[in-house]
Amino acid sequence: MSSETAESRTETLDAFHRGNFHVLQPKGEGHRSGVDAMLLASLVAEDGPITVADLGAGAGAAGMAVASRLPGANVLLVERSPLMADYARRSVALSENSHLSGRVSVMEADVTLTGRARVASGLADNSFRHVIMNPPFNNAGDRTTPDRLKAEAHAMTDGLFEAWIRTAGAIAMAGGQLSLIARPESIGEIVAACGKRFGGLEMTLIHPRPDADATRILVSGIKGSKARLVFRAPLFLHGEDGHALLTRADDLNNGRAAYMRRTGRHV
Amino acid sequence: MSSETAESRTETLDAFHRGNFHVLQPKGEGHRSGVDAMLLASLVAEDGPITVADLGAGAGAAGMAVASRLPGANVLLVERSPLMADYARRSVALSENSHLSGRVSVMEADVTLTGRARVASGLADNSFRHVIMNPPFNNAGDRTTPDRLKAEAHAMTDGLFEAWIRTAGAIAMAGGQLSLIARPESIGEIVAACGKRFGGLEMTLIHPRPDADATRILVSGIKGSKARLVFRAPLFLHGEDGHALLTRADDLNNGRAAYMRRTGRHV
Repeated sequence: MSSETAESRTETLDAFHRGNFHVLQPKGEGHRSGVDAMLLASLVAEDGPITVADLGAGAGAAGMAVASRLPGANVLLVERSPLMADYARRSVALSENSHLSGRVSVMEADVTLTGRARVASGLADNSFRHVIMNPPFNNAGDRTTPDRLKAEAHAMTDGLFEAWIRTAGAIAMAGGQLSLIARPESIGEIVAACGKRFGGLEMTLIHPRPDADATRILVSGIKGSKARLVFRAPLFLHGEDGHALLTRADDLNNGRAAYMRRTGRHV
Repeated sequence: MSSETAESRTETLDAFHRGNFHVLQPKGEGHRSGVDAMLLASLVAEDGPITVADLGAGAGAAGMAVASRLPGANVLLVERSPLMADYARRSVALSENSHLSGRVSVMEADVTLTGRARVASGLADNSFRHVIMNPPFNNAGDRTTPDRLKAEAHAMTDGLFEAWIRTAGAIAMAGGQLSLIARPESIGEIVAACGKRFGGLEMTLIHPRPDADATRILVSGIKGSKARLVFRAPLFLHGEDGHALLTRADDLNNGRAAYMRRTGRHV
């Protein structure tokens, strides 16, 4: 089924938000978007016209999910990998996404660029109301990475959060919101990287079941806020038994609800 | 009821672990021990003879709770304030605590001492199997500190966790365990201070109710471990309704159960 050339690479067309938009993704290779991307998108909760940058967008699922739920959102998908940026462009161009395509664009750029190089790439300072990110990570300590693309997408390196959040801090407007989803073990790097850039950090741990360790953490913060960090009530994906998402998680996953910040935009 | 002199200061005799031990505490002044100290003590879970240092012990509730539940525990209460150290000594000496008093001692010393000064104070390097701490914090951003003693006990300063955990790292044996309870907003400082000193960090957020923000975080780590940080299932003190502690929290509070580490002592 698989092939050596990108052109004939086996791919899938996946529906999100109960069919409201679709994403083309390479099959069995690279990082595949799913519930993580939808939960990340749920953190953007603001009516009216907003600019949104999705850093390391991959095939574009998270950014497109924001556009799908928020008709005022203008979304820029930023992706370094030419292959994944191509998937993002082809996803946006799908006829199934024609209601979104005028508000979603793709930029091929390296999120870790700094200073003038970043501005020259097209990422202007102080220009986004929202910056969202699902930074790559590897599972080096846990399991093998079966292929090269996945290894690249999951290539967690020391200083990754510092570099990515530095860019977010530069391109976000004053009072703008950073939203991210990550592995819980990255919390120290995330808090350190937010530093004086983003405050009012709101953390939500995601547990697959009520008695299980957290597998992800949702983080949002406001540029320039001095409000203290809070951990909100945990989010359980499933109940003690059963495989269906619990109502709350399902609503977030399907774009029927946003995950509102508790403390708003107190700077 | 209150008076200006320490000798006639109004004090209370509080029962813990369903009356298995008692603690003398100043009334209405200083940091008063309660559920926090009992949850902290529950993190020490090891049979057989162990040495335990309780840093910033106050009147001694947490350290005495370890001694109360673990008959093999030899506990040193370390407290800087002469007034609180006196309460700790008087608490240990109570006839109600005679079954513990041979295994609990009090040292008046500043936890933030370093190097030779720390050793000279009586805190030897690599000498404790367990180090526990409930470091002071203030509520400057949240509410007023009504009196001087409380202000001193809650005097959170930048670098506090670095100083306290540096001492813990020095006095803990290789493979020894650090356990602490703190406010969730301190997580960045805690993770940074553990750094290469303590790994295998296990975090548990404590929420007063399932839908409420976390009010405390329990942390344990193993000296020299390289295991990754995990967030365990949250601990809810109360249910959606009612004021009684839930069974799990009540068991930890009353010394009927320990809060075992998930991953043991993999270094």
